[in-house]
Amino acid sequence: MFHHSSKLQFEVKVDRPNPVFAKHLQQAIGGIEGEIRVAMQYFFQAMGARGDAKYRDMLMMTATEELSHIEFLGHAVALNLEGAPTSMQEQAAKDPVVNAILGGMNPRHILSSGLSAMPVNSNGVPFDMSHVYATGNLGADMLANATAEAGGRVLASRLYNMTDDQGMKDMLSFLIARDTMHQQQWLAVIEELGGMEGQLPIPNSTPQEHEATAHSYYFLNTSLDEATPEGRWTSGPSLDGRSEFSVVEKIEPLGQKPSLGKARPDSAAQNEQM
Amino acid sequence: MFHHSSKLQFEVKVDRPNPVFAKHLQQAIGGIEGEIRVAMQYFFQAMGARGDAKYRDMLMMTATEELSHIEFLGHAVALNLEGAPTSMQEQAAKDPVVNAILGGMNPRHILSSGLSAMPVNSNGVPFDMSHVYATGNLGADMLANATAEAGGRVLASRLYNMTDDQGMKDMLSFLIARDTMHQQQWLAVIEELGGMEGQLPIPNSTPQEHEATAHSYYFLNTSLDEATPEGRWTSGPSLDGRSEFSVVEKIEPLGQKPSLGKARPDSAAQNEQM
Amino acid sequence: MFHHSSKLQFEVKVDRPNPVFAKHLQQAIGGIEGEIRVAMQYFFQAMGARGDAKYRDMLMMTATEELSHIEFLGHAVALNLEGAPTSMQEQAAKDPVVNAILGGMNPRHILSSGLSAMPVNSNGVPFDMSHVYATGNLGADMLANATAEAGGRVLASRLYNMTDDQGMKDMLSFLIARDTMHQQQWLAVIEELGGMEGQLPIPNSTPQEHEATAHSYYFLNTSLDEATPEGRWTSGPSLDGRSEFSVVEKIEPLGQKPSLGKARPDSAAQNEQM
Amino acid sequence: MFHHSSKLQFEVKVDRPNPVFAKHLQQAIGGIEGEIRVAMQYFFQAMGARGDAKYRDMLMMTATEELSHIEFLGHAVALNLEGAPTSMQEQAAKDPVVNAILGGMNPRHILSSGLSAMPVNSNGVPFDMSHVYATGNLGADMLANATAEAGGRVLASRLYNMTDDQGMKDMLSFLIARDTMHQQQWLAVIEELGGMEGQLPIPNSTPQEHEATAHSYYFLNTSLDEATPEGRWTSGPSLDGRSEFSVVEKIEPLGQKPSLGKARPDSAAQNEQM
Amino acid sequence: MFHHSSKLQFEVKVDRPNPVFAKHLQQAIGGIEGEIRVAMQYFFQAMGARGDAKYRDMLMMTATEELSHIEFLGHAVALNLEGAPTSMQEQAAKDPVVNAILGGMNPRHILSSGLSAMPVNSNGVPFDMSHVYATGNLGADMLANATAEAGGRVLASRLYNMTDDQGMKDMLSFLIARDTMHQQQWLAVIEELGGMEGQLPIPNSTPQEHEATAHSYYFLNTSLDEATPEGRWTSGPSLDGRSEFSVVEKIEPLGQKPSLGKARPDSAAQNEQM
Amino acid sequence: MFHHSSKLQFEVKVDRPNPVFAKHLQQAIGGIEGEIRVAMQYFFQAMGARGDAKYRDMLMMTATEELSHIEFLGHAVALNLEGAPTSMQEQAAKDPVVNAILGGMNPRHILSSGLSAMPVNSNGVPFDMSHVYATGNLGADMLANATAEAGGRVLASRLYNMTDDQGMKDMLSFLIARDTMHQQQWLAVIEELGGMEGQLPIPNSTPQEHEATAHSYYFLNTSLDEATPEGRWTSGPSLDGRSEFSVVEKIEPLGQKPSLGKARPDSAAQNEQM
Repeated sequence: MFHHSSKLQFEVKVDRPNPVFAKHLQQAIGGIEGEIRVAMQYFFQAMGARGDAKYRDMLMMTATEELSHIEFLGHAVALNLEGAPTSMQEQAAKDPVVNAILGGMNPRHILSSGLSAMPVNSNGVPFDMSHVYATGNLGADMLANATAEAGGRVLASRLYNMTDDQGMKDMLSFLIARDTMHQQQWLAVIEELGGMEGQLPIPNSTPQEHEATAHSYYFLNTSLDEATPEGRWTSGPSLDGRSEFSVVEKIEPLGQKPSLGKARPDSAAQNEQM
Repeated sequence: MFHHSSKLQFEVKVDRPNPVFAKHLQQAIGGIEGEIRVAMQYFFQAMGARGDAKYRDMLMMTATEELSHIEFLGHAVALNLEGAPTSMQEQAAKDPVVNAILGGMNPRHILSSGLSAMPVNSNGVPFDMSHVYATGNLGADMLANATAEAGGRVLASRLYNMTDDQGMKDMLSFLIARDTMHQQQWLAVIEELGGMEGQLPIPNSTPQEHEATAHSYYFLNTSLDEATPEGRWTSGPSLDGRSEFSVVEKIEPLGQKPSLGKARPDSAAQNEQM
Repeated sequence: MFHHSSKLQFEVKVDRPNPVFAKHLQQAIGGIEGEIRVAMQYFFQAMGARGDAKYRDMLMMTATEELSHIEFLGHAVALNLEGAPTSMQEQAAKDPVVNAILGGMNPRHILSSGLSAMPVNSNGVPFDMSHVYATGNLGADMLANATAEAGGRVLASRLYNMTDDQGMKDMLSFLIARDTMHQQQWLAVIEELGGMEGQLPIPNSTPQEHEATAHSYYFLNTSLDEATPEGRWTSGPSLDGRSEFSVVEKIEPLGQKPSLGKARPDSAAQNEQM
Repeated sequence: MFHHSSKLQFEVKVDRPNPVFAKHLQQAIGGIEGEIRVAMQYFFQAMGARGDAKYRDMLMMTATEELSHIEFLGHAVALNLEGAPTSMQEQAAKDPVVNAILGGMNPRHILSSGLSAMPVNSNGVPFDMSHVYATGNLGADMLANATAEAGGRVLASRLYNMTDDQGMKDMLSFLIARDTMHQQQWLAVIEELGGMEGQLPIPNSTPQEHEATAHSYYFLNTSLDEATPEGRWTSGPSLDGRSEFSVVEKIEPLGQKPSLGKARPDSAAQNEQM
Repeated sequence: MFHHSSKLQFEVKVDRPNPVFAKHLQQAIGGIEGEIRVAMQYFFQAMGARGDAKYRDMLMMTATEELSHIEFLGHAVALNLEGAPTSMQEQAAKDPVVNAILGGMNPRHILSSGLSAMPVNSNGVPFDMSHVYATGNLGADMLANATAEAGGRVLASRLYNMTDDQGMKDMLSFLIARDTMHQQQWLAVIEELGGMEGQLPIPNSTPQEHEATAHSYYFLNTSLDEATPEGRWTSGPSLDGRSEFSVVEKIEPLGQKPSLGKARPDSAAQNEQM
Repeated sequence: MFHHSSKLQFEVKVDRPNPVFAKHLQQAIGGIEGEIRVAMQYFFQAMGARGDAKYRDMLMMTATEELSHIEFLGHAVALNLEGAPTSMQEQAAKDPVVNAILGGMNPRHILSSGLSAMPVNSNGVPFDMSHVYATGNLGADMLANATAEAGGRVLASRLYNMTDDQGMKDMLSFLIARDTMHQQQWLAVIEELGGMEGQLPIPNSTPQEHEATAHSYYFLNTSLDEATPEGRWTSGPSLDGRSEFSVVEKIEPLGQKPSLGKARPDSAAQNEQM
């Protein structure tokens, strides 16, 4: 069960409200790199967690923290929208800076939300829940979470570069820090479970005989004119410790030329296809 | 530039067509764990790759392979739809197995595609390109790719369990094998670049002073009644080698109680809010 | 800031797991009538609330409760999926009940989530955040909330009718009860603010001179062959107490026939349009 | 059956075309607060109306009117796009006002529609029909409609504030007026059916014994540090006349700590979960 | 301006209600081949029509007809849902036909719409307006319309094959007939404007010097192992009468190997990319 | 099976990078008129092609070419983003041109992709695969393809007008040329199969007795005040050679007034509806 206390997890100050930056900040709320995504992803993973209960607890705790991140970012968006121009009066129309702000901000911050945050990204596209990755497989989920946090930290770093408002920089510093911990956290689970070698390939519970292992460890060069890009993936032991990497160049197809034959009489195709 | 040869990468045989399994297979084409996603993800990452050109090449080569996976899976769907019932004639309506097939298959396999594959998942929801994760950051992209392959291999393993058609099992074995290699491959890039320690936290190019490092390495227990779930993430050196893990329980909020004050007169709020 | 405690808000028991009912229950999680929607709607309304702070507090408290509803519904879905068939082995394929279950359940409950809840509706369509209605206008928001709860209670009543599992009926009874309170609650705000008469029309802050009041209180009969359907909306005082209802039949258009003239030479239209 | 006459319902004049305002106006066509939504919502509610036929007639008549609103708004968008810049010639590139217009308008108004209206909102996001709320329950539908009109009137009021073009202000005045009537109209149905007291809770046809009425009339304070926000919803008779409001603070969870146990061997989870 | 009369354009009778067929019929309402799409497509094309006004009139008239098609199809869906099972009572659960219906119908026809039509396709995916193709170019629009009608007639023919209910067959016969006329109608515009030769290539207003005509009339064989598929497109005069068809086999790329160089220091890429 | 070679199909040069034009170019990648759409549409049509194998081959060859178009357009977007402003430093904030660029470019080109192409349109809306039209009917598919190419060539022509960068104009000229060929190509298939007369109505395999031919060749005037717009579609032989065109004005409805009667007791409607 969830509870709430009235203060924000982190202090939000905006020295100079900037409605265009408010639009950018939305990416951290409703973007695929944003906080709604991680809050819901960890929440649904927790609800589907089977096995040792401590992973469920850990996921739920961090889901709860991410809800608090949505909350302070939402406040930051609203504070950046204070004082935004809400009309195209003739005078304003002559000022190129006002024009650029009116054209550059999200119009729905005026028209739809009345100067507050929305669950959309920086293009105004609403977040959709297909981005909540929760497979019921702990290894896959931990990688998905590390990925989400990496994306989030990349975003927060870019937002930090965009603004020179000290309050915003402080808030983003905090976010960068927490994203660091969360990246660590999910990969630490993998380490605890035996590291990449123990967890790979995901799922590690697929019986070996379900896998055509002859095809499991070669890098396939599909280029007609490039040499194979040599690297850790072309030779040496595989990362799951089960085999050696090799390379296949210009593979011959292993399959047939596909043909579906004639169309069925009742399939509403053209006569010529029957 | 892309080229094509007429044979499939892997031989597709279907011993007993099954239109309900055709619906399930769609998840491997147009699901978030599917082949359109990885083909397009690696393609767009390649197009945005900056730095050592070999990573671009590698991404493009595997993107090309994934296109070939879409191709043989698409053929598998069509072959599973051969002989599907396309009418509710009275006689058929009395046979519960035919009824179950008619109700359980994707109706658009009859109505929209005329018994062939579609770029949708097993619920008939079209794939959308918001799932193409390509950040311009090689570390984040490699994690995203390992995640995508983990999801794909989990899916292929589940599909393997669902069918007892030998041709389908063979095809899925091949897919499981290639997903193994691709998981390896993306993590091998990370290893080549210094391993997790060298690559974490992602992005590793964010200046340390942008980060409120006091908040970077503690696990936050947000529960009111659960002890902290102990694990690799609560003590010991952090995975980036920069600090030590610790725990904060029942954190006091660091921020203010948010308040936006009164609404602007021109914001179309209720009078009571102004 | 949010917090969590480990027990569910309401006890969830499933006497006879039913994977098809699990699919139906998803509507209460990820449908437009579901709990993700109201949790996020009240949360974003709270973040955008201007004026008397008690409305913000009230919204946040109920948003927090709705998160707890997602949690116990998610558990109910997982418990209904225990024991679901995960293969089409030949033997199973001959049993029409197993066939109907395999065809009637959400395949992604097997393939994607591994037998647990997802943030999707009963068709498997992911929830998208465009359904979070938060206008910054308290009157509009309260109506939107009463609407959401009405939809939710209609849904819960229909789900109650669908199942004969006592544990599920108990859980749905609780949900019906809380939806009752929440409907009441949002309309109570309107009553407190002066009732419909005081709050209508929404927004009540639009200056009267912005409105072409000659068109504000007549019902327009646009039918060519039906008499005006008489009712409370065709005569008597308007509900905002500002005027009297009347009727206009077969209105003559007040506007011009639209014409855009010729296409611009540089607009890539056909020559014939220029 | 539908019919059409060639004139617009209301005269559309644009004194000074403004392509950025054209983008804003799109919210009134293809936004969730827009006219496509209400036209389709009333249309589908009419098609599903059971009970007294006059409500069906009324819904269809107003659906028809809303189609006419789409029509004149579409014309207004086209007229605002007349004369829009369609190139980035070097000279233009130096004029910051032209630059701001080119950056601030919807590029698809040039690229995709050739200077005319589209069924998208002010962010260019296409309208999707999930926003057509039609439950088959007259009370729920009427609240949904009043909500839609409240949102629409808020939007029209904000658009009125944004423009100083007299033709646009006149058109928006008309729209504000009709939205007033439509808000009234849907709430008048509720009044006619016995008012909120008679209609609440929605659905009013759910048998009382399906509801855990012990939980139906208390406000739940989920905050750890805020006093209950007192109001009409915390004491006095409930709005459906069936009970009295009360308050529960810091509720103890009524449910168990959820646990799903171990993962099934065939569910493609990690070995550690089994 | 739109008007309505109370009777349906075509008589709808359902002899034996079938809730699974109701789900299928939804494709004709809310599918990409359905009536909402064409109604809105012709409506938006009409609103953007420049040039000879008769095309605008024609488009608006047929848009109006398509609205009437939605109306009778919506009624057909509701009639097919009469008598649908709305519960999983124990007894029902043992009857495989009832099970197949419960699993095979759209659950939202019970849960969300209360046994009436919805603006969704046969997978329950809501229609979205991105499918409204309206370019402002009459030639492109007419082709898009002929395409839409071809898709619609294919769908109606497949639905006709699926049902053996005489009332439904009659309604679909009418729909097939009107789709025939509409296909004809849009292509007749092209014929009137000079036929394909006059209208091609679309847009025919692009100045010839904007086009690299050396690349305009060869078929490109991108296969490594297939001979060029000979046909009308490989030799003879082009269909726009401007040139002759030819073939290019195994084209050499005309471009460079792409390279983006190093990442910018402020772009949050990995250190290794800079 | 697919293969790749390292050079681009066409040389991409950008003389003066322009981040706002980069946003516009995205329409040609991820818009409904763009290259992802046609690549995937031809690919899925090829996979579902039944009948003469040469059409399958032709579709696959051109699908492969379209993949190469995505590739060079993606490079063009990245080159246009070189040097884009990535911060709002105070100094920059005073320059209206920089402001207009920052407001006018796609913020996700900075925040999400790190200055490279994304699979989105010029509004930042991701491409979704519902736009892949593949019906299994060759005639319908060829019309859909000609439509897609017409849309694409209209778009390329408009983009050509927008830019004065010579490198971009050259690339767009090439694209215009290839779109010309592709338009030709799909219509050439129709000509080869007997021309419009032979292929219409689509599907031409629907038995004539399934069609209510009395309704197949009249234009329906649904206007109350406009004369029928005379044209090729109102008289003369129909384009399929099967009949003569005629006109019906002000058709009387052929159907009943729809009525659904009372709501079922278990359908959660209001009491008044039962």
